[in-house]
This record gives sequence, structure tokens and C-alpha cells, in this order.
Amino acid sequence: MIRFNNDYNHGAHPAILEALTKTNNESYGGYGLDFWCEKASNEIKKYLDCPQAAIHFLLGGTQVNYTVIAAALRPFHSVICADTGHINVHETGAVENTGHKIQALPSTDGKITAAQIKEEAQLYASCEIKEHFTKPKMVYVSFPTEYGTIYSKQELEEIHKVCQEYGLYLFIDGARMGYGLAATANDISLKDVARLCDVFSIGGTKCGALFGEAVVITNPYLQEDFRSYMKQNGAMLAKGWLLGIQFATLFQDGLYFQITQKAVEYAMQMKQAFYENGIPSYIDSPTNQQFVILSTKQYEYLSNKYIFEFDRKIDEDHVSVRFCTSWSTKPEEVDALINDIKNNL
Amino acid sequence: MIRFNNDYNHGAHPAILEALTKTNNESYGGYGLDFWCEKASNEIKKYLDCPQAAIHFLLGGTQVNYTVIAAALRPFHSVICADTGHINVHETGAVENTGHKIQALPSTDGKITAAQIKEEAQLYASCEIKEHFTKPKMVYVSFPTEYGTIYSKQELEEIHKVCQEYGLYLFIDGARMGYGLAATANDISLKDVARLCDVFSIGGTKCGALFGEAVVITNPYLQEDFRSYMKQNGAMLAKGWLLGIQFATLFQDGLYFQITQKAVEYAMQMKQAFYENGIPSYIDSPTNQQFVILSTKQYEYLSNKYIFEFDRKIDEDHVSVRFCTSWSTKPEEVDALINDIKNNL
Amino acid sequence: MIRFNNDYNHGAHPAILEALTKTNNESYGGYGLDFWCEKASNEIKKYLDCPQAAIHFLLGGTQVNYTVIAAALRPFHSVICADTGHINVHETGAVENTGHKIQALPSTDGKITAAQIKEEAQLYASCEIKEHFTKPKMVYVSFPTEYGTIYSKQELEEIHKVCQEYGLYLFIDGARMGYGLAATANDISLKDVARLCDVFSIGGTKCGALFGEAVVITNPYLQEDFRSYMKQNGAMLAKGWLLGIQFATLFQDGLYFQITQKAVEYAMQMKQAFYENGIPSYIDSPTNQQFVILSTKQYEYLSNKYIFEFDRKIDEDHVSVRFCTSWSTKPEEVDALINDIKNNL
Amino acid sequence: MIRFNNDYNHGAHPAILEALTKTNNESYGGYGLDFWCEKASNEIKKYLDCPQAAIHFLLGGTQVNYTVIAAALRPFHSVICADTGHINVHETGAVENTGHKIQALPSTDGKITAAQIKEEAQLYASCEIKEHFTKPKMVYVSFPTEYGTIYSKQELEEIHKVCQEYGLYLFIDGARMGYGLAATANDISLKDVARLCDVFSIGGTKCGALFGEAVVITNPYLQEDFRSYMKQNGAMLAKGWLLGIQFATLFQDGLYFQITQKAVEYAMQMKQAFYENGIPSYIDSPTNQQFVILSTKQYEYLSNKYIFEFDRKIDEDHVSVRFCTSWSTKPEEVDALINDIKNNL
Repeated sequence: MIRFNNDYNHGAHPAILEALTKTNNESYGGYGLDFWCEKASNEIKKYLDCPQAAIHFLLGGTQVNYTVIAAALRPFHSVICADTGHINVHETGAVENTGHKIQALPSTDGKITAAQIKEEAQLYASCEIKEHFTKPKMVYVSFPTEYGTIYSKQELEEIHKVCQEYGLYLFIDGARMGYGLAATANDISLKDVARLCDVFSIGGTKCGALFGEAVVITNPYLQEDFRSYMKQNGAMLAKGWLLGIQFATLFQDGLYFQITQKAVEYAMQMKQAFYENGIPSYIDSPTNQQFVILSTKQYEYLSNKYIFEFDRKIDEDHVSVRFCTSWSTKPEEVDALINDIKNNL
Repeated sequence: MIRFNNDYNHGAHPAILEALTKTNNESYGGYGLDFWCEKASNEIKKYLDCPQAAIHFLLGGTQVNYTVIAAALRPFHSVICADTGHINVHETGAVENTGHKIQALPSTDGKITAAQIKEEAQLYASCEIKEHFTKPKMVYVSFPTEYGTIYSKQELEEIHKVCQEYGLYLFIDGARMGYGLAATANDISLKDVARLCDVFSIGGTKCGALFGEAVVITNPYLQEDFRSYMKQNGAMLAKGWLLGIQFATLFQDGLYFQITQKAVEYAMQMKQAFYENGIPSYIDSPTNQQFVILSTKQYEYLSNKYIFEFDRKIDEDHVSVRFCTSWSTKPEEVDALINDIKNNL
Repeated sequence: MIRFNNDYNHGAHPAILEALTKTNNESYGGYGLDFWCEKASNEIKKYLDCPQAAIHFLLGGTQVNYTVIAAALRPFHSVICADTGHINVHETGAVENTGHKIQALPSTDGKITAAQIKEEAQLYASCEIKEHFTKPKMVYVSFPTEYGTIYSKQELEEIHKVCQEYGLYLFIDGARMGYGLAATANDISLKDVARLCDVFSIGGTKCGALFGEAVVITNPYLQEDFRSYMKQNGAMLAKGWLLGIQFATLFQDGLYFQITQKAVEYAMQMKQAFYENGIPSYIDSPTNQQFVILSTKQYEYLSNKYIFEFDRKIDEDHVSVRFCTSWSTKPEEVDALINDIKNNL
Repeated sequence: MIRFNNDYNHGAHPAILEALTKTNNESYGGYGLDFWCEKASNEIKKYLDCPQAAIHFLLGGTQVNYTVIAAALRPFHSVICADTGHINVHETGAVENTGHKIQALPSTDGKITAAQIKEEAQLYASCEIKEHFTKPKMVYVSFPTEYGTIYSKQELEEIHKVCQEYGLYLFIDGARMGYGLAATANDISLKDVARLCDVFSIGGTKCGALFGEAVVITNPYLQEDFRSYMKQNGAMLAKGWLLGIQFATLFQDGLYFQITQKAVEYAMQMKQAFYENGIPSYIDSPTNQQFVILSTKQYEYLSNKYIFEFDRKIDEDHVSVRFCTSWSTKPEEVDALINDIKNNL
């Protein structure tokens, strides 16, 4: 069986295991205050144009999201996001568990617009008696989204502008950042991301690391005491250098960008094959996640050879499914799938 | 500089990196529902005599502690522990952050007694109007403690008995479990631990793993929905098999016990050297952490060659410090220290 | 200016102030363990046919809602309600502040259906890997709703049935209970309410009391330790008898039902006048809250003589507004309004 | 039976019920934005010399304490208090329920010293790696304390100075403020209280009101958004003017000070009688709470005629008990007790 079910079904890029093995006899101080975390931070900063950024290394995506939100918000603050947002649907209420309301806005492609955010912020701003309502104080967007779509630079600029106008923090969940940056249609760089938001993450788990996510805090106000929030939320690895080594390896020669770009190329080949063979997309995604609509027969045929994810039922005879490529996808795996699409569906 | 500062200053036992490397081309389902987690669970169970135990693999010690406590307690429940307990002093209020009061009992050696627990539980039980007070519902002890001391089987039996009598869960934090079991004076086995408490952890981070802690839940009531609590608290690793592989490697041939025993032997050699050279213990510890009282001059001399931890000031001319051995300690490192103790202090 | 802005703009029914004055020289034990709370509880129970119910007296509606929810749910549980539900929009995220997600379902008239609830519960039940999602465990409905509408007995029976099927608690927020029971179209009694849900409130604040809400817990499992949750959440009045006296006064001779019925009669007169003069309802409400659509001119005219609540803009020239009657509404106030509707709009 | 069990065993001072009755036909806007709350605020401010103070009216003491603390602190902040402090022992972990650790300092008379606070703050300030610890950010003291004792002006000045030095908020719980100010030994005025702390409460429940506590926030930073925290924590009374009327009545002609002074005079008479008849104090209190040590025989004798509170067992034949006077104590009640002390013990 070939796995296209997600982008975290293999260990790590070999360079990472090599780096871990190579340094295994070295000893380091704990909790992220070590040579490697500093080096990784510096390597990432080369892509940012934001020397004052504070970069921390956490263990997983859910942890990143609720720790950042808990650190940034006061108890009566809420966070705006798409109703499809990861924090709203896939994290067991972790954000609410920290005490904060999520104001979910309707979305069909995983994205929300500056206009939607403005309406929500305006509603609160225009209340005469505000104290009956939570105050929207943060906007959470994912780049790319849970449906593989990406924001254009103009869209992010507009969202940024609304956030500035209404005093909202902008938090970009970049669990799959590499795959978004690698999209042909993408016109955003990490520099733009750093410039337009207050805090964002760069996912390692889904982009070649064993585990780990970098959190980049550009807003100085949010930098304060962040390590205390990390520790309190179980997000400070005792052997912090293990994360530093991984991110240093991924960023020092651009490996992060190379392996995610390759994955997107594979995804585009796959997308093209589906398209050419009349299999419609459920959502038009330019990144490593492809949502297509299969007939029951097609679904059953492919299920015998590939592991992929059921998304939803479309009608009696059709389902939407997700095929994922990743840094660990091999060309022969993609070729096998394309061959099956062409010849056997 | 030679590091005796803690037991998590090196990566992992080589066997673990080998196992990770060997399986790196394999692909697995996520979130701990994989072959390796099951295997690791089974390997651990061989030492337990508790087939109904549920075993989960989490990422770090603070996370284990607050997740277990959040999962077990209702909002008005409190947890009893030694005032020196890790949850009370070193975890940034993570337990209170989940809403629960810690009832800290005075302790001089890191341990609390059944009598102390009984008194606390009795106080609540005897209240006529209970609703003004939190209800003690869990007892947290560490084995070994933060001072390297261990509970005897009789002590744990007595604590267990009080817990049964007053409906308290007993939670044993085994972040350093291996070092406690390896102590010459120890008369407890993992079987005893599993029999006497409701939930306990087996630390990997400090005992040879890159990272990771096993949580063993023996009380069926506490097993329910534990995975939901893990996910909500950021304690469910996407690539869960990375933890399974590590614990399978540590437990399948008893590696865990061998490497921690070696560390305790080194600590005993060190302890003996201090003793023979008239350097008093601050606390008499039979495990890998040794607390000794150094004069300022001795402290300065050793600080030039070794990294170890300041504990507290004793008087104008003396301090208490901690020397730690671990699975990664090398015999030549111990020899160097012993030589310095003998000849240069 | 005549106030139709809400149902809590006057102190209390005179009988309540008399009762408080009459007992003012008496002394009582604290925290709700007194003669009056017991008497009030017994008077309420006469209407319930539920001898095992536990009845507590709290101070306000928001407090009731979050205390009941915090007491009933575990951290990964969520509560289902209408998107218009008071807990979702008017309580400053108090429920999320206790750590729980609200799953808001779309509603146009303030009500949700058994089918909607079933779909939500079914979604969770059918998940293969549940731990990524909060578990719906409670349904919150208001009777009457925030739009003055009421559930029929059949609707509540169906909701009850779904709740039983999926193990959901049913919580009925009766902040305006009296006005719902008094509706001509209503076919529900307090007996039905007690039979069909696990916990409900009977509002005093909006129904003749100075302040205070009765919480009736019919599900024995939810009764346990409720007083501890009250105290922890600031919901236990030191001089608890003040609440007992108020509820005993309201319920001992059916005063509660008489004064709320009168208010609904006034509301129906008002509704009829609007209708006869071509002023449409925004929502068809059979209770004391009337939502009508006024032209800008009508709005301005009435604003000079009456205080009432802006609800929302309908179009350039129309707004929806709320007129509320209450136990304190005087016939001459209603007459004045009706006269203006007939002759001056 | 005569009640000396506490200071909240009667309804309210008659002037308060009169004021409520007199205004009962008036109508007001809700949530504390009314004429009476403003008037009450102004009356209180006449005693403060702090025109910028923000004054809010909440419903009860526990609610005040956790709402103030939740509003002031960030998740990793802790609050320092005496181990006997009300928030530490009598509020069902309400503070921890908001996520904050209480750092309880040893106390024998209910008070803590500036030196103790400094030591605690210094400990954190001197940590090299702070993120493992909660940061003390607030000091909570009660005036008078739970044992009836009071801080001198010099003691409060010293505490204030330490708080300023270490950036700690000072919060004074004045649930019994009137009784403290009325003590002969007291050298503090409300002006001093307002000057020396960041936020304090003035209790109504125990000092003549039906219910209600004024919260005076002098630190502008803590004033921000406080009403949002009130609403979120169920601490905003819908009919807010009920609290305004009560506090306006208590403060407009100094009634608050007169009735609490009378209660302290009664307590001093009682104290004198105990003293003259050889019955020792458990703690020397200058306020309305008197703790004395009774023999079992004395305890039994008095228990037949008076209701008072058991404090603790002293030895086989002695117990410490609390006698409380209050605004509602009658001279004949005190005379009866004094007579019994003199003649029948």
C-alpha cells in the first residue's frame, strides 16, 4: 500500500537523522538555550528581514496554536478564524480549554476575507455596551489552509490592514508553510509573512522534521514572557537542541524549501492526471493536498492500492477524498498513482 | 567541561537512534495508533502484571503531569503533594493553569507520609460544610523524588491504603523511574508500582530516550477518554510511532534497566568519594542525583572543570549542590571527578 | 419616558420587599442552608412532580449558565446551542472561560430542532478517531428563547429523545420561564420541563424578584457536589435566605404565574395593536418580548416617549426593535403605547 | 439562641430596606450604569482622595476576589497571600479555578510582612531561568484579617514599598473593612488604603447591606475592561442600582462607619469580659471577631444559649472559638453574654 493519506507518515528527512546522530555524543544545556536553537533561529532569520523576531521551537501544531493564543489573549478576548480552521475543528477544543472563544466565520475554501474580519471587528467596536461580548483580539489564518488553498499577497495585505485598524493580532498557522510557499501561484515570501503578521509558525512535523514547529514572534509585545507560557503549557522540550538541530538542518541550505517544492510538483502532476482524466477537484488547491471527487467505483479501486483520506460524501455515488504528497513522497509512488488514474479508473 | 548538571544533557542511547534510522523509510498511521506503540506497550506490560493497564506515550514530564491531573480531577478537586514536588515548584503553575489547587505538604527529603495524607484527607472528610474547600482527590508523589530519595514498599503500601480509604487517586511521577528502581536500597518493582497506584509515568527523557514519557493507567476509570485529554493538551504526537520505537527499544531487552543501573552505580562511586573525603551529603540519596555540601573553595574548584547545579546556600561559606549521573555518563567522567574529590578538594 | 426596554428595569414585586422587611430582624444560618431556602424549594416542587429534584438558588443568569455547565461537563465536552443562544452571544464568553466549546447551530427564531442536534451528535458518534474533536455532551435551549419564541411539548419531547439516545444532558435556561408558561399557545407545564430535561433554571430577576435564579437539577448525577461548584463560582450567597424568601414568596400562592401571565397579556395587546396598524413582527412571539419592524419615522416618534431596544437594521428605512413587558408593566403604560400605535404612527 | 456566629446572619440595616422600598416604583437602566451606582461611587470617593478611582459593585466576596485576580493577572502570574488568607482556605479553590497559583506564606495571626513578600519576590527576581516558575505579581492581604487582626499604617507602607519595588499589585480584601477602620488601635483611613494599594474591596454583606461589595480600583491599568471581567464572571448584577442604593445609603451620612464602630465597641466589651474572667484570647483581635479559648465545660455551657463558631481544638480539654459581633448585634445580646461570662463560666 502506498500512503498519500497525510504529510506526516514518515520519520524525517535523512539529513535530520544524520545530524542527530552526529551530535549525539555532545552535551548541551537544556530548555532551548543552546547553540543549535540559536543557530536555527539565525538560519530562519536569514529569510525574514526581521532581526527583532523572537523564534522558539515547540513540539507540535496543536500545542503551538493554543500556547500562542493563551499567551496573547486576555480572558475576555476571542479569536476570529474560518469555520474550517484547524483550531476550530481538529484540536479537541484546545483553545476553548485555555478559556477563549473562537468566532468562526463561514468559509468554503478554508480562507476568510478582510471584509469578513472587518465586519466582525466593527460589530464589537460599534457596541455601546461592550461588556456583554467577547472582544475579538486575534485573527487566525492557516497558510496554506486545511484545504490546501493559499492567500495571495494582496489578500494578506488587506487582512493585515484590518487587523492594524482594529487592534487585532494576526497569527498565521504555517504547519504546512513550505508547501504554500512552493506553490506556483504563490506570490508571498517568508519576508512578507513576517512583515504582515504578529506571530506565525513554520511547521517541521509535516515538512521533513521528526517533530517540531518554529514559532516566530515579530510583535515585541507578544515576545514578552513567551518562554513562561511555553513551559506552563508543556511546550518546552527539555532537550531543546533536538529541535534546534532539526530546524538548523532544514534551513541552513534551503533544504526546507527544496523538499516541500518537490512535494508540490508531485501534487501538481497528480492534479493534472486527475484533471485530464475527468476527475473533478473538490477544491482547487495549488499545494500538496489535493481534494478530488471520486465515484464509488473509483474510490474502491484506488483504496486497494493507496491509503488516502475520506473527506465527505458528495452524493449517493460520489465522495470527496484527499491525496497528500510530502517531503517523503517518492517519484515511483506518484507514477504508480498517475498510471492508475490514466489507465484504470 | 564535564556535565553532571542533569540527566538530560545528551541526545539518546545509540540503540534508539539506530532504531529510528532503521525504520525511517517505513510509513505509519498517526497519533499513536501504530505497530510500535502497541509493541512498546506490550514490552512494558511484561514488567507489570497488569494486563488491563492502558499505556500512552506523551512528550514531556510537565505535560504528563498536568494532562493526567486535568483528566482525573473535577474543578473543585485538589491534588496533595510534597511542597518540594515538581508540580508545585518547577512547572510554572501548569497544574493551577488547568484549574486545580495543589495542597503542598511540608517535606524535608522530598517525600510525604501516609500519616500526612491521612490528616489532610481527614480534615476534609470531617468538615460539616465541605463546599467552602477544595476536595483532595489525588496524591502526587515522585519516585524517585526531586531529591533522589525513594519510597520503600511499606511506605507506598501505607500511602496506597490511605488513598483507598479516602477515595484518592495515587499518581506516581516516574520521570526518573529507572534510577529509583536501580537503587540498592530499593525494594519496589514496576509490578508493585502498578499495583499500588492508579496511574504512573515512566520517564524516557531522563533515561535514555531522545524524548518521551510513558503513562501507565491502571485504574480503568481514569483510562476513559484519555486520548481526548492528550490531544486537547498538545500531548499527542502526530508521528506517535517515534515514541513507540523509543520505548520498545528501551524495554524489549531490559536496556532501560541496564543503563539506569549503571548510572546509579556511578552515582554511588561518587557518593562514596565525597563521603570518604569528608564532604557531607545535603540529603542522603540512593539514586543518580547526589546533593552534597561544598565549601566555597571546593565549589569554585569543581566549577572550573564540571558543570553541576547550585541547589541552595547553606551558610556564609557553604552551598548545597547537585551532581547528576545518567545513562550517558562515561566511566572516565566519574573517574575524573573522584580523582579531583580525593586529591584536589 | 416609559420603559419597555427589558423585563428587569424595576426593583421587585411589592410582596417580596414586604417579605424581606418582615423577616429582617430574624437571624439565619448562611449559604442557603436555612428555613426559607427549604421552604422555597418545597413550594417549587409542588409544581414539579419530581420529589428527588435538588433546587439551589443562585444570583444571576450568566452565573447560572456557566456554573451548571462547568459542573456538568468534563474538559473535552462541548455544549450544543442555537447560535442566538444567550450563552453564545451575551455572556462575554463565560462558558468558554470555564474551558468548554459551544457548538452553535444555525437558528432563525431562537430555537433548534431535534434533527439538528441529532446530526451534530451523530457526527461525533460516527467518527472513527474521536479524540480530535470535542464531544457534545449537553444541549442548551432557552424557554422562552431570546426571541420570545417557545418550544412545543412535542418539540421538547423530540429533543429529549435525541438527548437520551446520545447521552446528552438537556439544560433549559428558564430566565424568562414564567413568560413562556403563560403564553396562550404554550402546552408545557413545569412538570413537563422537569421530566424532559436534566437541569433547568427558573428566573427570578426578570419575573418579579429583586434578583436570583432557581436551579432545578433533576438528574441525580448532576446533583452531586453542586454546592461546591456554586461556591467556587461565586454563586453561593452568604445570606442565602434572601433568595429563599423571594422564591417562597413568588411560588407559595402562585404569584409567579399570575404576574408573568399579566405581562404576557399586555404583550399580546401590544402585538395586536402593531398588527392591526400594519406594523409587521420581525419574529412571531407569543410571550412578553415583541420584535417589530418600524420605519425610521415610526422609530423616531416612539423613541421620544418610550425606551425600547434596537435589535438590528432591516434596510435603509427600517429597523427591528424589541418591546418588553414585565411583571412591573402598568396598564396605563400599555394603553399609552397602543394609543400611539393606533393614532400617531 | 443568640447568634454570635458571624457578621452576616441578619438581612440589612433598616435604612437599606427603606431605600429599596422607596425606589421600588422607579425604573432604571441595567448593569450598574445608573444614577444610584454613580451616586454611591461619588459618596465613597469622598472618603478616598483619589478622584481617578473606578468603583464597581459586585455581589459577594469570593466573586470579588477571583474576578479581581483573574482580571489583573496573566496565566503564569501567581498571587502571594497568608496561608490563612480567605482565598487560600475558604473559597473552594476559586482562584486556582481561574488558573492562578497562590503562594501561601506562613502566618500565625493572619498577617504577612513586607519582609516575607520581599523574600518571595526576590527569589523569583534572582532566578536565572525564570520560566520554570510562576511569577509573583500580586499580593493579597485582608483588612482586617480572617483572625480579626489589622495592619498598622507602617506595615502597609512597607508592604506597599516592596510591591512597588518588585512590580507587584497590592490587593486589599476589605470584606470587613468597616470593622478594621473602627478599631481603637487602627491608624489607617480609607484614604491610606486607596493610596497604598492598587485595588481594594469594601464589604457590604458583612457591614449592613443585604448583599454586595464595592471594588475600588485605583491603579488605572487595572481599571481597563474591568466590566468585561465582571460580566464574564457572573459578577454584574442586571439590576445594578440595587447595589448602588445600598452603598449610597451606607456611605452618604457615614452610616457604614457608625454601625461597624458600634459592633467593635460591643466586641471590646465582650473581650474585656473574657479577659477579666480569665478566659484567654487565642489571638488578640481589636475588631469584631474575637477568638477565645474555652474549656470543654465552658464551651458546652455557652453552646446552650449562643451560636458561635468552633475554630480548632487546642488540647484535650480546650477549644478555640470565634464570637462575632456585627452591625445587627443588639446591646441586650452582648449584655446577656457578658453576664454569662461573669457569673456562669
